[in-house]
Amino acid sequence: MTSAKRAVVLLSGGLDSATTLAIAKAEGFEAYAMSFRYGQRHAVELAAAEQVAARIGVAEHRIVDIDLGAFGGSALTADIPVPTTPSTGIPVTYVPARNTIFLSYALAWCEVLGGADIFIGVNAVDYSGYPDCRPQFIRAFETLANLATRAGVEGTVRFTVHAPLIAMAKGDIIRRGTALGVDYGLTRSCYAPDEAGRACGECDSCRIRLAGFTAAGMEDPAEYLRGG
Amino acid sequence: MTSAKRAVVLLSGGLDSATTLAIAKAEGFEAYAMSFRYGQRHAVELAAAEQVAARIGVAEHRIVDIDLGAFGGSALTADIPVPTTPSTGIPVTYVPARNTIFLSYALAWCEVLGGADIFIGVNAVDYSGYPDCRPQFIRAFETLANLATRAGVEGTVRFTVHAPLIAMAKGDIIRRGTALGVDYGLTRSCYAPDEAGRACGECDSCRIRLAGFTAAGMEDPAEYLRGG
Repeated sequence: MTSAKRAVVLLSGGLDSATTLAIAKAEGFEAYAMSFRYGQRHAVELAAAEQVAARIGVAEHRIVDIDLGAFGGSALTADIPVPTTPSTGIPVTYVPARNTIFLSYALAWCEVLGGADIFIGVNAVDYSGYPDCRPQFIRAFETLANLATRAGVEGTVRFTVHAPLIAMAKGDIIRRGTALGVDYGLTRSCYAPDEAGRACGECDSCRIRLAGFTAAGMEDPAEYLRGG
Repeated sequence: MTSAKRAVVLLSGGLDSATTLAIAKAEGFEAYAMSFRYGQRHAVELAAAEQVAARIGVAEHRIVDIDLGAFGGSALTADIPVPTTPSTGIPVTYVPARNTIFLSYALAWCEVLGGADIFIGVNAVDYSGYPDCRPQFIRAFETLANLATRAGVEGTVRFTVHAPLIAMAKGDIIRRGTALGVDYGLTRSCYAPDEAGRACGECDSCRIRLAGFTAAGMEDPAEYLRGG
């Protein structure tokens, strides 16, 4: 039997997670994509996640409903304006404990699937300064995962949290994904798209993405209202 | 101003978490109780959690819907019989990554509340052998919490995960809670209660609870179908 190893891949519908999914596949994993509906304003990302998962090819794609909005506290889930000028420090679009919650669900599914590998597209170079995108956070979660689970404790599995983009510049991520065949026209990164899903071109996420395409010497196939 | 420090207390409606809530209050915290509806069979616990929260007194009680059942893999959420004889090793009632997910939500709420303290009623003495009830798991989550959050990274908060019962025998927990005025008649521990909420008296959880009352030299006020 030559069955591929199963990996859970967190998939937001953005550029980074699409690239991460392509990398997991290129490394020979059978990919199980997991997305979250958490009251975020940019729900258009979920439609993008479905298209990306279908195009790149996954064994299964689950969209999990979670109620992060109940806690408030972020411009991505509560009624706080998304800023259009760069901020210093951790921005208001930070969602409390978001990646901790996402990775916890991924860990649960991974254990049930009998897998040992979780992929997350965090990036600590061209990013928005979120604390839960840093290497020390990823390592701490990996330690936790092996203490938290039956599989980890019984020693049948050693969980690994893969963050293949964590040290890459955005331009390099785009070049890598393009080489792997990712269609970035399907991905959505904007925090404040219009109803047709067009990117604002002005939020942190749009600015970082556009600068990445410029660095890669490529044109962003996404549709922008301004600035694209 | 003499406002009490805010703490999030995970509250299942069982004996241990009720005692933990009473301890948090006795230590001077303003308690924010958090419970989960996760497709578990023993939903009667949630009604108990509401009664316990109201009796002991909390600033707020939130019940969060989460979809653990979507992953399957446990007798508490899937269609696997709850065993009535003791098992060896980690039992089938283990829910993958359950406490990791619960603590992640608690962390998010705690950060939004501006608190620094989370209470969880895990116990590693008279317990069912779950990996995510052990001291090393709690410590690993505490480390993660301080890396995962804006408050932790900016140094405005040092998160502490309190597990006051972790090294206590069940009889001592019951004595402590009784001294603090906990009404154990409101709590529910059974994994497989009948429709009226009566405890089976035979599952792991019932056996551990009943032995605890015996050790404490007290009578369990809960209603049992058998064995109580």
